[in-house]
Amino acid sequence: MRKKLLLSFICLSVAFVSFGQELANFRRVAVTSPEIGETTVTFRFSAPNAKLVRLYGSWMTSYDSSINMMKNDSTGVWSVSVAKPAVELYTYNFIVDGFPSTDPNNVIMQRDGTRYLSVLLIPGELTENYFEANQRGNLEKVWYDSPTIGMSRRMFVYTPYGYNTSGQKYPVLYLLHGGGGDEDAWSTMGRACQILDNLIEKKLAVPMICVMPNGNPGQAAARTLMIPEKTIDRNDPNSANLYVNSLVKDIIPYIEKNYRVIADPDHRAISGLSMGGGHTLSASNLYPGTFSYILPLSMGVGANQTDIDKNLQGVKNAGYKLYWVGVGREDFVWQSAQNLDAALTRNGLEHTFFVTDGGHTWSNWRIYLNTFARLLFK
Amino acid sequence: MRKKLLLSFICLSVAFVSFGQELANFRRVAVTSPEIGETTVTFRFSAPNAKLVRLYGSWMTSYDSSINMMKNDSTGVWSVSVAKPAVELYTYNFIVDGFPSTDPNNVIMQRDGTRYLSVLLIPGELTENYFEANQRGNLEKVWYDSPTIGMSRRMFVYTPYGYNTSGQKYPVLYLLHGGGGDEDAWSTMGRACQILDNLIEKKLAVPMICVMPNGNPGQAAARTLMIPEKTIDRNDPNSANLYVNSLVKDIIPYIEKNYRVIADPDHRAISGLSMGGGHTLSASNLYPGTFSYILPLSMGVGANQTDIDKNLQGVKNAGYKLYWVGVGREDFVWQSAQNLDAALTRNGLEHTFFVTDGGHTWSNWRIYLNTFARLLFK
Repeated sequence: MRKKLLLSFICLSVAFVSFGQELANFRRVAVTSPEIGETTVTFRFSAPNAKLVRLYGSWMTSYDSSINMMKNDSTGVWSVSVAKPAVELYTYNFIVDGFPSTDPNNVIMQRDGTRYLSVLLIPGELTENYFEANQRGNLEKVWYDSPTIGMSRRMFVYTPYGYNTSGQKYPVLYLLHGGGGDEDAWSTMGRACQILDNLIEKKLAVPMICVMPNGNPGQAAARTLMIPEKTIDRNDPNSANLYVNSLVKDIIPYIEKNYRVIADPDHRAISGLSMGGGHTLSASNLYPGTFSYILPLSMGVGANQTDIDKNLQGVKNAGYKLYWVGVGREDFVWQSAQNLDAALTRNGLEHTFFVTDGGHTWSNWRIYLNTFARLLFK
Repeated sequence: MRKKLLLSFICLSVAFVSFGQELANFRRVAVTSPEIGETTVTFRFSAPNAKLVRLYGSWMTSYDSSINMMKNDSTGVWSVSVAKPAVELYTYNFIVDGFPSTDPNNVIMQRDGTRYLSVLLIPGELTENYFEANQRGNLEKVWYDSPTIGMSRRMFVYTPYGYNTSGQKYPVLYLLHGGGGDEDAWSTMGRACQILDNLIEKKLAVPMICVMPNGNPGQAAARTLMIPEKTIDRNDPNSANLYVNSLVKDIIPYIEKNYRVIADPDHRAISGLSMGGGHTLSASNLYPGTFSYILPLSMGVGANQTDIDKNLQGVKNAGYKLYWVGVGREDFVWQSAQNLDAALTRNGLEHTFFVTDGGHTWSNWRIYLNTFARLLFK
């Protein structure tokens, strides 16, 4: 009877699902999209009444290169096959009569700030660590008190495979997002958990905890939580470094109290992209000796040498193990990153200036994490 | 100089954001949508070339009641103001020339299986516990080994506010999703963390851990992770109860080993909706005495009394503290839920038959959790 009972549950459930989809989602025609073939990728999309549907993918260089999809009038399904782009993680839209839509048949989506985009992940050597590993760590959405900012705030904390049972203590990477992002960015667009899981499983990186805070001091958490925001006057010198102060005074003590971590500078790394690269520079400059691994990404410094040199001398005197700057040749911060490279050389700080093709993109930030995580805590 | 430096980061970040949005999201016109007023809700949507845009919301009873939006031809923005629906959490689509799209200006989205829907949350007494509380627990995405199913699987574990520092042990609610759902369903569509946070902060519920597993035995995790699935023949008697067995043999031991829980039947509750209500019945029938709190939602039993009575006598003899059945009058399982109510009465099991308006909906499942969580572990 249990079997019969269970079968009846299944029938009911199936009935429920189709019913729900019919009601909430009428006229959605389920088609396979995207379909990754040997040499092509096929996109499909049902919009019987649309006049023009175009495909725009992040592998294209501009809107003008978006592609017209062809409609099969007997089914109303638009489709197009494009040459398979190079191995990478891309996002794409369908442009339906001029407005951009995600792919309703692709469950893999990313949120970039307030925008949702469909994801195309082309398998290959570059992206092999972007897929799920066999041994996976956990990701916790953690609320902590920030006396410095004066609110309860949320961060994401990754603990490596085996953390619960190993009993051992771990080093910590503080990984910071950029402008427009939040505490969710590195674990979704950045594939940080998959990259760390794979590198640790392959013994290419040492097991580490990764802390991903929210770098917008006015926000308690990502806007998806609908929590009212505080206005922070960043021009006010007292609040200019509010987030960086809270990182060192609130977040690090919370992590070192609540997780099994090795609580010393040689087991603390800090990295961030764009605005988070700025936070990385501010944190290492304001709190020299706190982080032995300093890795600003897609960020640099201005032309004023005096203050920069004073700061870097402070970092040099406090000591560090790795200073690693990642940037793309086509990044609009290329010049300021070169300023940073020159300032580090001028001040006699041993460092790596890791230059890639491309610009201010998640493609590069994933590559940088997949590269520098192998160098940490060794 | 730090101030100047930080300001330059901000300028760069802003540049980056606009740049990124321009490239990835051209022609998206940012408008305010939805805008919740005193008596109306206004939806806005830019689609200059669309011929017909309709609004479909889950508060409407059928597709035919979807509403035509009006286009302002000078701006290409479509908009409509509707009478504010009753206080509740709703989902909605824009139907653009016949195809359903989410609202590109609403960051609040839900995934129901493979579908994404925009969310409209009307504030009021019914929904006050669906918003973020002041004191919030953490949510962890946990990987555990399931020898019973033969794979590493993911579940979500909610720990209440103060768990990290209290040092105390907690009771556990095992909360199961329905057909088409996964481990993500209760914490998103079900607002489970917000409901528990609010009830615990208001001292209406005792602090508890809430475990939300994935009830599809062929899946390691939600499909958003792109992990290949196993085919499970549910007609095979050996696999018919595979998930329920893994819940009792793999999940409960993992939770009781890795979290500070009170590991006895009086501090274990099990509830689930639809298919998860079936799992709740199977788990309590197959493992009598394991759960002192048994709460099947929107589920029932067939007409065959002999086996049902045998199972319920087993539950009765093993003992329990609360047997609570929730269902809506318009639910397509209404008859089978009435069968369950009758069977419980016939067999002399004290129980609550909690009947609401409405049908097989998340609206009801949120109401049931918001109701029964106050009764647990007291």
